Amino acid sequence: MFSPAVQKLIDELSKLPGIGPKTAQRLTFHLLRLSAEDALPLAQALIDVKETVRFCNRCFNLTEQELCPVCLDLSRDQTSICVVEEPGDVISIERTHEYRGLYHVLGGALSPLDGIGPQNLHLAELFERVRSEDIQEVIVATNPNMAGEATALYIVEELRPLISAGSLRVTRPAAGLPMGGDLEYADEVTLGRALTGRREL
Amino acid sequence: MFSPAVQKLIDELSKLPGIGPKTAQRLTFHLLRLSAEDALPLAQALIDVKETVRFCNRCFNLTEQELCPVCLDLSRDQTSICVVEEPGDVISIERTHEYRGLYHVLGGALSPLDGIGPQNLHLAELFERVRSEDIQEVIVATNPNMAGEATALYIVEELRPLISAGSLRVTRPAAGLPMGGDLEYADEVTLGRALTGRREL
Repeated sequence: MFSPAVQKLIDELSKLPGIGPKTAQRLTFHLLRLSAEDALPLAQALIDVKETVRFCNRCFNLTEQELCPVCLDLSRDQTSICVVEEPGDVISIERTHEYRGLYHVLGGALSPLDGIGPQNLHLAELFERVRSEDIQEVIVATNPNMAGEATALYIVEELRPLISAGSLRVTRPAAGLPMGGDLEYADEVTLGRALTGRREL
Repeated sequence: MFSPAVQKLIDELSKLPGIGPKTAQRLTFHLLRLSAEDALPLAQALIDVKETVRFCNRCFNLTEQELCPVCLDLSRDQTSICVVEEPGDVISIERTHEYRGLYHVLGGALSPLDGIGPQNLHLAELFERVRSEDIQEVIVATNPNMAGEATALYIVEELRPLISAGSLRVTRPAAGLPMGGDLEYADEVTLGRALTGRREL
């Protein structure tokens, strides 16, 4: 029904996660209404990103060089690796100013139902780093959901020999009530985690 | 926090309707994970659309020529114009195979709160067509919501002299219960419209 060029744009937009055919059609009409000067920067930004942005050779964070800014910063603690799912998680943790070590970006989490197994993530590279670099702590900051928890368990099992040998700590950020939250509105899983993870005052 | 190229792509995606900064960030990470061969077709599709697709000189439907396929098809009823908000609405109506006349795409609906007045839509061109072409019926198929109803009222008021002179009919598609629907679940406005618009059996 649509002309080939329009249909092609709808099809390409539909491939994006969370964007179905109806949304793709709406976005396409929006882009059609824009002048070329307003619409083409999006195409150019995408081309530029694919040309300039790559993954850090060491930790798979985003970078425009061989290594990412974190790996290049030798003032950071070189004995600690914080494992996250996505490059955006690095940004989130950096914003807290509570962590000064290195990162390792897995590129997702284990999810067998979606066909994502250990070989689809940068897990082998993580274990290689832990063994070859002088790492004393691995903080597994995958998301506190089913896939993230499964990934954390997988990592700790793989590193079990080093933990038993006393040469490595593997930790996980605390799960509990969000700051500013309210006991009454907390879901039972979160509240349960907050109780089992209670700390001395 | 992000590199300039990544931030630029996030910013450009955030400009799309219904896409906020968080979604734009998620889409950007998805595009970063794709290979260049998988990601660049989107940029190319956008460039192609802006190069080849334009609006019909007469009815503002989408076309890759001066006039759209509907306007070029002289076998269609040249005395009837169906007024719609968006080019996608033309596709929807064509799919019904119930209409064989011409179209006029307004490019939106009147919405003063969003700063969309008559001068932002192709309304002047519609009235010019009705006066200069041999038009006997205008079907106002704007959406059955506040903005679409307001636009329909605006159009019928502007064409009132021609209607009073008996040279033009202005109609609106029936509002009522959707086929396959259920009285129990119909909202009161729709059910009210269905009752006031009841027909002899």
